[in-house]
Amino acid sequence: MAAVIPRRISPAAFGKALAAFRAIVGSQGVLDSDEDRQTYIDPYAMGDGLDHDCSAIVAPATTEEVRALVRVANEFKVPLWPVSRGKNLGYGAASPAERGNVILDLSRMNRVIDVDVKQAHCLIEPGVSFFDLYRHLAEKKIPLWMSTPGNSWGSVIGNALDRGIGYTPYGDHCEQICGMEVVLPDGDLVRTGMGAMAQSAGWQHYKYGYGPAWDQMFFQSNFGVVTKAGLWLQPEPEMTAKVELAFPKFEDAEWAIDLLADLRRRDVIQHNIVFGSPVRAASVVSQRAEWYDGPGAIPDSACEAMIKKLGIGWWNAKVSLFGHAATVKAQVEILRALVEPRIGKPLNFELWEQGDAPDKSARGIPTTVGLQSVNWYGGRGGHLSFAPVMPADGQPILDYARKIQAYYEQVRQVNNVSLILYDRDDPAMVTRVDKLYRHLVTEAASHGFGEYRGHISYMDAVADTFDFNDHALRRLNDKVKACLDPNNIIAPGRNGIGTRPA
Amino acid sequence: MAAVIPRRISPAAFGKALAAFRAIVGSQGVLDSDEDRQTYIDPYAMGDGLDHDCSAIVAPATTEEVRALVRVANEFKVPLWPVSRGKNLGYGAASPAERGNVILDLSRMNRVIDVDVKQAHCLIEPGVSFFDLYRHLAEKKIPLWMSTPGNSWGSVIGNALDRGIGYTPYGDHCEQICGMEVVLPDGDLVRTGMGAMAQSAGWQHYKYGYGPAWDQMFFQSNFGVVTKAGLWLQPEPEMTAKVELAFPKFEDAEWAIDLLADLRRRDVIQHNIVFGSPVRAASVVSQRAEWYDGPGAIPDSACEAMIKKLGIGWWNAKVSLFGHAATVKAQVEILRALVEPRIGKPLNFELWEQGDAPDKSARGIPTTVGLQSVNWYGGRGGHLSFAPVMPADGQPILDYARKIQAYYEQVRQVNNVSLILYDRDDPAMVTRVDKLYRHLVTEAASHGFGEYRGHISYMDAVADTFDFNDHALRRLNDKVKACLDPNNIIAPGRNGIGTRPA
Repeated sequence: MAAVIPRRISPAAFGKALAAFRAIVGSQGVLDSDEDRQTYIDPYAMGDGLDHDCSAIVAPATTEEVRALVRVANEFKVPLWPVSRGKNLGYGAASPAERGNVILDLSRMNRVIDVDVKQAHCLIEPGVSFFDLYRHLAEKKIPLWMSTPGNSWGSVIGNALDRGIGYTPYGDHCEQICGMEVVLPDGDLVRTGMGAMAQSAGWQHYKYGYGPAWDQMFFQSNFGVVTKAGLWLQPEPEMTAKVELAFPKFEDAEWAIDLLADLRRRDVIQHNIVFGSPVRAASVVSQRAEWYDGPGAIPDSACEAMIKKLGIGWWNAKVSLFGHAATVKAQVEILRALVEPRIGKPLNFELWEQGDAPDKSARGIPTTVGLQSVNWYGGRGGHLSFAPVMPADGQPILDYARKIQAYYEQVRQVNNVSLILYDRDDPAMVTRVDKLYRHLVTEAASHGFGEYRGHISYMDAVADTFDFNDHALRRLNDKVKACLDPNNIIAPGRNGIGTRPA
Repeated sequence: MAAVIPRRISPAAFGKALAAFRAIVGSQGVLDSDEDRQTYIDPYAMGDGLDHDCSAIVAPATTEEVRALVRVANEFKVPLWPVSRGKNLGYGAASPAERGNVILDLSRMNRVIDVDVKQAHCLIEPGVSFFDLYRHLAEKKIPLWMSTPGNSWGSVIGNALDRGIGYTPYGDHCEQICGMEVVLPDGDLVRTGMGAMAQSAGWQHYKYGYGPAWDQMFFQSNFGVVTKAGLWLQPEPEMTAKVELAFPKFEDAEWAIDLLADLRRRDVIQHNIVFGSPVRAASVVSQRAEWYDGPGAIPDSACEAMIKKLGIGWWNAKVSLFGHAATVKAQVEILRALVEPRIGKPLNFELWEQGDAPDKSARGIPTTVGLQSVNWYGGRGGHLSFAPVMPADGQPILDYARKIQAYYEQVRQVNNVSLILYDRDDPAMVTRVDKLYRHLVTEAASHGFGEYRGHISYMDAVADTFDFNDHALRRLNDKVKACLDPNNIIAPGRNGIGTRPA
């Protein structure tokens, strides 16, 4: 593994920068051996991942250390790639968009600073993982629930900053953030919302403060390093009800999406809904060869086998209800009346009441089971998420699903709209996946759909599709970037912002 | 009424700028006579309002005209004060923070561009008033509801941009905005969210787009002129239920706020709640002299008379429930079980079902009845809103109410925590109100409470209380302002941002 240094600076200057970093965080807080760098390579990289290799890792323990590191980075023009815990799997993990950045690893900053039980919020550092927070709440028997993403070994704040989602009423993770502390690229320290008052009594109570709110500027971007954030939590409800909806036919997507989206807008369903194919379900509990061992796309007959064996539908959605017992029971009946006549069988709700075992509830419990899907092909698996935003409208989505299905058949490697699974050691497959992803991005854009999030290798490609008024958004992004970060030292190229390699 | 020109430019240059403005919008679109300027003076100004007099008014009809005007403003260094409809009553109405700005009146841009009935959203221009939108929906029999503020003769977008609120599930108006079109201070045109794609199919479906989201940067600020915005609307529910809660004793505030805030966090109550005193209720339907004609604060005995005559409590809150009939009925019972035993009498719910008359429902219907409170003292009334953000926590709020009550008694002019009512032609009262407001801001800040919104005369005073890290927020605001608006031509001084008069 070759030594890497950040572009545009000399090895000598980089050596001085590392020495200055060590003076701030100690020798143990700066890692630059081959072995250390290897552990930060994306485990799902297509190929060896060295095109996104870092030059070193620096791990501060406090906000003041972050500020000092940022000042040194400016002095030596060393770009820093901040990660909370580096688990952004499917999007590049800890790897920088630009090869040679120093990874600023915040995982040592993992304090749960405060939990306000009555007001249902907490203040945490970026190194706090979903498991950390869950354990904290469970050990102290705090009746507040979290929302967790499908694969939840990452950072609570990091996931929110990338606009990750979960499947409870608090599942729009970026919207649960209330008040942030951010080290700006020049080392200044700002608190947003009511925290902008030194003696604030309500940092986690009201998001906006007085004047413009900057929080969303720090999401999916590179305008600062978030060192603390408030997070709203869900008061434990009296009751929850869970149900697995299985829609038998491909064409059911149209009415099912319309029905679910309407209930979502009416707050009967208060959470984001996964609407998945049989392969999605099968990929978590089995390997591809168990169903079909041939080349190309999985034939319909194999899908039918999955549907039969796993007892699922062509489309599958898990719905949960939360609230007072009387309300939940009323909502169960609303769902029954709408869905049962159309699918021709009774829905099987699992009820949970306060006092029952946690795992029976519809709360967010951290899990990594979903990650097993990367074993789909055997070999060293990987996944790449293609995630276009579409209107919650049944008919155009069904049309689009039909079209995408055709593309997937054409390229014959992958079999799921949102999760592209591959064998990372199969170079031909990797080449085809790259081509497929770029094609999907362009094709989606031609329909007016844009990605909500993208892999580090495709940040420019995705950003390019946001092209209104000759890329006015990029002009605005880059203008503010140049103003706040003239040396372009925080995460250059992240989400297509800041100078890109020539 | 003396002629006014913007500071730092010559009368000759201003004349040229007005000529250039006329070339863009026509002669009728530029107003600078004394009579015209008089009509833009804040009707509730303390005193004559001339300290916030404008130099002229320019009224574009299209986004392209706004862009051209902004370019001219840059050329001649003429500051523009954008208003949507100029009805920001209680906060300065149409008047600029800095005397001599040209008011950029967007009220001619009043198109409802599109309403998507199925997806429950619309795209509108800033000149669309709450009455306009209500009429549009009613005339076309569109089953979508809006949220309206207490006084709703202003602009839908303008109110949202100032973070105004209403009292339905869509009452956090700034959060219903999905996708904006903004003319930047240099005349560039940006669309936010998914609208940043030229051919977007989902501008009003997803707020954040890809990368940083800038929307909240344009709220309560001066970084651009919003020329279009998407707005989420509420699908008409099956049923609503309204109830007036009357809490008999001053001390009831503690438990009542805790109870209501808990139900709010649990989504039983899905809207912002007004929690008002007897004087608040009385000021809308009567004048002060009917209850008490003496000097100083209104004595407890007069409050008791209001409570008895108006059939209200010491604290009064209107609660509404929305949803499917079965859910609403379940929630009615939840409220009954929690509140009735404590107040010792049955709650009187008013139910509405689809097909009933609109005014029986709990929807937002535009009204200006609340404005009658400014007649409280007789004379030419005015009001000034003091609006600190506090934790939704009963005990500290009760403590604070006790303390504030004492201040009001001390200054002996005003009688309501959130709404300071005065006779604008009584100079002594105006002086005392000014002193009171400044005192309240400072006093609140010492408790850690900051204002969510403030009058144009007090924008610096409020911004000053956001003082974390030696006013880091102001440094950030001013840095971005200087970058995007180097000539400081959009609303200088708004919310304390940008160069202030020496």
